Amino acid sequence: MRTDKLKQAAKNQTKPANFAVFNPTNITYFTGFQGAAALIILEQGENVLYVSGVNYEQAKAEAKGFTIQLLKRGENLMEKIAQQTAGAKLCVDTLPIESWRALAKAVGGEEKLEPATQLFRNLRQIKEKEEIDLIREACKMADVGIKTAQETIRPGLTEKELAAEVEYAMRKAGSDGVAFETIVARGVCCAYPHGTVMGRSICEGDFVVVDLGATNRFYRSDITRTFVAGKPTEKQQRIFDVVRLAQQKAIEAIKPQTPTKDVDAVARRVIAEAGFGEYFVHNLGHGVGLEVHEAPVLSPDSKDILDEGNVVTVEPGIYIPEYGGVRIEDTVLVTSDGAERLTKAPTKL
Amino acid sequence: MRTDKLKQAAKNQTKPANFAVFNPTNITYFTGFQGAAALIILEQGENVLYVSGVNYEQAKAEAKGFTIQLLKRGENLMEKIAQQTAGAKLCVDTLPIESWRALAKAVGGEEKLEPATQLFRNLRQIKEKEEIDLIREACKMADVGIKTAQETIRPGLTEKELAAEVEYAMRKAGSDGVAFETIVARGVCCAYPHGTVMGRSICEGDFVVVDLGATNRFYRSDITRTFVAGKPTEKQQRIFDVVRLAQQKAIEAIKPQTPTKDVDAVARRVIAEAGFGEYFVHNLGHGVGLEVHEAPVLSPDSKDILDEGNVVTVEPGIYIPEYGGVRIEDTVLVTSDGAERLTKAPTKL
Repeated sequence: MRTDKLKQAAKNQTKPANFAVFNPTNITYFTGFQGAAALIILEQGENVLYVSGVNYEQAKAEAKGFTIQLLKRGENLMEKIAQQTAGAKLCVDTLPIESWRALAKAVGGEEKLEPATQLFRNLRQIKEKEEIDLIREACKMADVGIKTAQETIRPGLTEKELAAEVEYAMRKAGSDGVAFETIVARGVCCAYPHGTVMGRSICEGDFVVVDLGATNRFYRSDITRTFVAGKPTEKQQRIFDVVRLAQQKAIEAIKPQTPTKDVDAVARRVIAEAGFGEYFVHNLGHGVGLEVHEAPVLSPDSKDILDEGNVVTVEPGIYIPEYGGVRIEDTVLVTSDGAERLTKAPTKL
Repeated sequence: MRTDKLKQAAKNQTKPANFAVFNPTNITYFTGFQGAAALIILEQGENVLYVSGVNYEQAKAEAKGFTIQLLKRGENLMEKIAQQTAGAKLCVDTLPIESWRALAKAVGGEEKLEPATQLFRNLRQIKEKEEIDLIREACKMADVGIKTAQETIRPGLTEKELAAEVEYAMRKAGSDGVAFETIVARGVCCAYPHGTVMGRSICEGDFVVVDLGATNRFYRSDITRTFVAGKPTEKQQRIFDVVRLAQQKAIEAIKPQTPTKDVDAVARRVIAEAGFGEYFVHNLGHGVGLEVHEAPVLSPDSKDILDEGNVVTVEPGIYIPEYGGVRIEDTVLVTSDGAERLTKAPTKL
């Protein structure tokens, strides 16, 4: 059970094996349920999920193996937690300062609490088979989105119209919704890696960056392809080929026990050697799971080490101000001896 | 300027008029830009937006009136903030405990910081004309989604297929994306107010709850309608009529200076008097703006007071376990002497 893994991880770091969990995604990770106020995991004793009236019936039906406590109107969650945990020292995940102080007051002082976001981060980054299967399906849905983009892009279409088509196609393929705000950016706007979808029309010869993801039972996927509306110029083809090579070499460098910064360096070197080093303005990638951005981080200053069961993006890019940009991204599983692409849409201009 | 309003609000409460803003939505509120790491607002001196490389070019183009500082790799954001603010005592919005401690260390102690989430909450709940116009447009897009649902619902269609159609229609109407995860729940599943969209098929005679919203330049809308796939039974019609009356009476009770709990009580009384009191298991409503849930809160235990320029949902519901549920929700503007419905889709079974 995931709660047992969490307790073991805490013990390995000589932290208390009792937990107050507030981050909604962490709660979903342990319970399979979305919409609880807090989860208490105790070394000895039952695991209690606090749910307000609006979600109470659904929690009882869906959060199997947890004691569901109704949080009634006017009841103080922090005081209920203090009663339930009866003086135990607690590991706490991401809690805003005001709520932290309220909990500290309820349990009798900050010394009863220990911030432990890292424990949850570390646990969630090694995916179980069941999680990988869900992400794999979410990746297939994202591939459908990219295929639709490729078939739909034409001069005159707006970024928003393209976003409408790819999201509709993913929904039809079974997606529970977008994994994040779809990015469609054309022409010079591709020079912004996070360019917002606007009403701008695609012009003949434009680069078009399409960055999208699907959701499958809370698990996400993330893929980017860059197209040209029409026939690419030599310069466009050259930039594209550099980014594609950088991605390919980085994926080849992935295996368990490799520092993520080494994988980032492989891609960064390919791009720098081609003369575009200053234009690769972001990290190589990030973990994907219940959140679209989670651990590990693939960047020059990351201290993360890859391990079997990580699911990460590999997404080098070149962004030239006033000109445009190219990004190629896949969601990739770290296997026992390398990497497997979970998104499989073809990579060509 | 919004930053001036914030400073004035702080002074009125004898809080420091210097701010470190970390909440992404608060930063967007002041800058119109999405994707910065932090915003510093000083009583005397320039307002500085910290942006990492990935969003730097876009911030320079879009965040007018703010000094954009590039946050380079390896640089410590909290130390940069400490230098910039040079010993000034800072109001801080929602910051997780680990980051709070890092900032406290950088500025020389917790006594230099004051949690002030409430200041931002209070400011954002009074919408300016420009914000109301954006929400009004987002509401029109949501109306298109509801119209599509009404025209599309039929026995045999799955919840996901219906979600696909309504989201596609909103995109086509200009939406920047969904305001929140669309809810489509059929039959007994409507008894869960937050029922997830699944692959379940709509059956003849089912209640179908459709809760959706659109996004327009970061601003959101929120509407719910309940339909019956086919001819409603007498019991269905009765439940529906009670919820509709509750909503109507609540909206009539809205005007500036009215405590939100009084508006909640109006709806709750209608439902209780009809004999369904135990089945109205959530708050009457919430503010809508840059976030789909923001201030004020309309609930029995809220201390909020309505004011002109609030935009709130009014969404009573009746949820009967093992049977089904009805919710009717509109996004409503508090005017100088009452309320104006911004979502206008017809309310009928």
